[in-house]
Amino acid sequence: MTRDLTIAEVRLTPILVADAPLLNTQGVHQPYTPRLIVEVVTADGITGFGETYGDTKYLELARPLAERLPGRSVMDVNGLFSLDLAVDEDRIRGAVDAGGLRGVQSADKLRLSVLSAFEVACLDAQGRALGLPVHALLGGRVRDVVEYSAYLFYKWAGHPEGVPAEPDDWGAALDPAGVVAQARQFKERYGFTSFKLKGGVFPPEEEIAAVRALAEAFPGHPLRLDPNGAWSVETSLKVAKELGDVLEYLEDPTLGTPAMAEVSAGTDVPLATNMCVTTFGEIKEAFTEDAVQVVLSDHHYWGGLRNTRHLAAICDVFGVGVSMHSNTHLGISLAAMTQVASTVPNLHHACDSHYPWQSEDVLTERLAFTDGRVAVSDAPGLGVELDRDELARLHRRWAEDDGTMRERDDAAAMRVAEPEWRTPVMPRW
Amino acid sequence: MTRDLTIAEVRLTPILVADAPLLNTQGVHQPYTPRLIVEVVTADGITGFGETYGDTKYLELARPLAERLPGRSVMDVNGLFSLDLAVDEDRIRGAVDAGGLRGVQSADKLRLSVLSAFEVACLDAQGRALGLPVHALLGGRVRDVVEYSAYLFYKWAGHPEGVPAEPDDWGAALDPAGVVAQARQFKERYGFTSFKLKGGVFPPEEEIAAVRALAEAFPGHPLRLDPNGAWSVETSLKVAKELGDVLEYLEDPTLGTPAMAEVSAGTDVPLATNMCVTTFGEIKEAFTEDAVQVVLSDHHYWGGLRNTRHLAAICDVFGVGVSMHSNTHLGISLAAMTQVASTVPNLHHACDSHYPWQSEDVLTERLAFTDGRVAVSDAPGLGVELDRDELARLHRRWAEDDGTMRERDDAAAMRVAEPEWRTPVMPRW
Ligand SMILES: [Mg+2]
Ligand SMILES: [Mg+2]
Repeated sequence: MTRDLTIAEVRLTPILVADAPLLNTQGVHQPYTPRLIVEVVTADGITGFGETYGDTKYLELARPLAERLPGRSVMDVNGLFSLDLAVDEDRIRGAVDAGGLRGVQSADKLRLSVLSAFEVACLDAQGRALGLPVHALLGGRVRDVVEYSAYLFYKWAGHPEGVPAEPDDWGAALDPAGVVAQARQFKERYGFTSFKLKGGVFPPEEEIAAVRALAEAFPGHPLRLDPNGAWSVETSLKVAKELGDVLEYLEDPTLGTPAMAEVSAGTDVPLATNMCVTTFGEIKEAFTEDAVQVVLSDHHYWGGLRNTRHLAAICDVFGVGVSMHSNTHLGISLAAMTQVASTVPNLHHACDSHYPWQSEDVLTERLAFTDGRVAVSDAPGLGVELDRDELARLHRRWAEDDGTMRERDDAAAMRVAEPEWRTPVMPRW
Repeated sequence: MTRDLTIAEVRLTPILVADAPLLNTQGVHQPYTPRLIVEVVTADGITGFGETYGDTKYLELARPLAERLPGRSVMDVNGLFSLDLAVDEDRIRGAVDAGGLRGVQSADKLRLSVLSAFEVACLDAQGRALGLPVHALLGGRVRDVVEYSAYLFYKWAGHPEGVPAEPDDWGAALDPAGVVAQARQFKERYGFTSFKLKGGVFPPEEEIAAVRALAEAFPGHPLRLDPNGAWSVETSLKVAKELGDVLEYLEDPTLGTPAMAEVSAGTDVPLATNMCVTTFGEIKEAFTEDAVQVVLSDHHYWGGLRNTRHLAAICDVFGVGVSMHSNTHLGISLAAMTQVASTVPNLHHACDSHYPWQSEDVLTERLAFTDGRVAVSDAPGLGVELDRDELARLHRRWAEDDGTMRERDDAAAMRVAEPEWRTPVMPRW
């Protein structure tokens, strides 16, 4: 064995990627979203890739971390998590989340959101160095495809006029007919057979009507509705009652474990979450109160692929289902999600992914959905290759940005079209 | 990469190893205890080792499993756990456990007790093939030594006369003075600084006196007492009250989660267990009722090293401590325990190990305790080598046994000395 697994270099590349004008309860996606691409290079010149949020607060944590890694072994991923990253608790506390849609901000969540990209990059490098897919490093895949759900959004046809943006060919979706048309496109293009609608945008009656329209257009297909906590307990229960016969689950109808527990006690519709259970510290209360029936893991903020497996094991013990949340992400993260998902026996729901919305990627070859599924790669590491020209182009966009796109802020993006827009006080309905 | 990680051969070697006349609430250890040595050989001729219980019921499950492994990848440890082992539920239900000291018997626990040896052997083979220690395959060690506790037993000077047995040089320990003398030997030979007394042998007052004597002889040293559920709730609370000032924790004072929860509610002394929480299925009730404060994991029956890490993650989430249980075992298992323990951040108690009681081993070089600690090997795999002559000798002992030693039965062993002995009805006191 002459192989040297020592980390020789870490490269961080912040980028801005095109995003569609997708609506949510906080506002609308910006035309460009910041992401951070992490590369961990071993002494043998093998490079592993990771990807995470790219807002300034993540970059500020990633930079000193990157400097500390050279000299460590790429195998030592446990050790990453005991590094003191000196997160400024005060700066984080009460801060508005980028996107604001994945629960309470905390220093720990910020820390894990950064560490996860390094963990994935280390696992990718391990796999490439050892000639093994990442799933093998996680004990081996138990399935050869991972199923994803179509992630439907209310959306405008385009970003506000006069704003620099990339066009998209999805058209507008602002009512039940638009949502069904979008779902049809998703099905035609990628073969998805389950559908999730991002709600919390219009009054509940309109969103109920949209889900009803989906149920009629796609009978028997699993459906989900996620208003990101925009509703009161009363409204949540009303929606659960009206849609109980067609919903696979209702996602974060209301905010916080006590309110979710109240909804849970009043309905048989399973409740899923990526907002009230987003850290290991939130599990105990939520599980003992039976506040949620499905946890939507996200390896970015749960701290990587191995923590995702721990989370799945915990869910299994408590009879809680597990699936996957997604925020705007590129192919490195989709590959990582697919690798870890392939190793989780108790994954019984199709995972979420924004990937179809991303017209740009940093890979030489995009990952493909066939019948709504991504094939699990058996190639070394994550099985993806970086397109350095494209990475450089998207980084230039970041470097040349005047600062307005570098922090994701869906409310600010909404104010471009509606100057009076304020982040709604929850519950909104 | 010309390396071939396919499993080419699996070898199972049941053995009988010498054991000392250690007393517990069920009876006494037999002169010889069955263990099963598992070897997984890759197509490249690399061999990984595992070890588990060797009673017939384990062998019966291990043999067909071993036949199914050739052709599979040694990396595919997740897949091991989805194999249908066709455990005969009816045969297991209500069966007396070998040793009877690790909770309720179940088909799942039997299954995991067998699978764990194959998982460890696969991880060992992976490490040897990849040139990596097992801890690196588990994310890397977070400490370079693992601390163990001296495992004190009431014992006879020797096995009953006329019974074939190997002598031991520990002498008898049947009262406080004997226990303290044994503890001194443990400290002198191995440097242990914490002590656990296996109780449930004599009436509680005598065992309280023994722990008091230990506290006086070794002031400030962590002490534990484990009667294996021999006490009523009332007795447990009385002992907790009397020893509360010197106990690190009280281990399984009484049987079953409801009774443990009652004791827990009535004392500040932490309760540890390897009897009421022994499977993932038992966690939910015990943790939500706050029945235990420390879970003593045992990779043999929790299903291997990766499950041990899942268990530790679950304990962390629920604010429950974690440490390690031990039954009679050899060096392969001690190496496995040490490797996994080195990767668990939230391991804050010295682990248990019977290893010092085992005068025989199948390794070319025994593992050493220095200052009560075992150094974490950075050699490939588990870092141990098999002594094939010794393995053959201990296997011959098994092959030539008339059947009486092949099933561990502490009550039967006790009846050799005390023909009227019956497994006590619990609670005994
Ligand atoms: Mg959500
Ligand atoms: Mg015990």
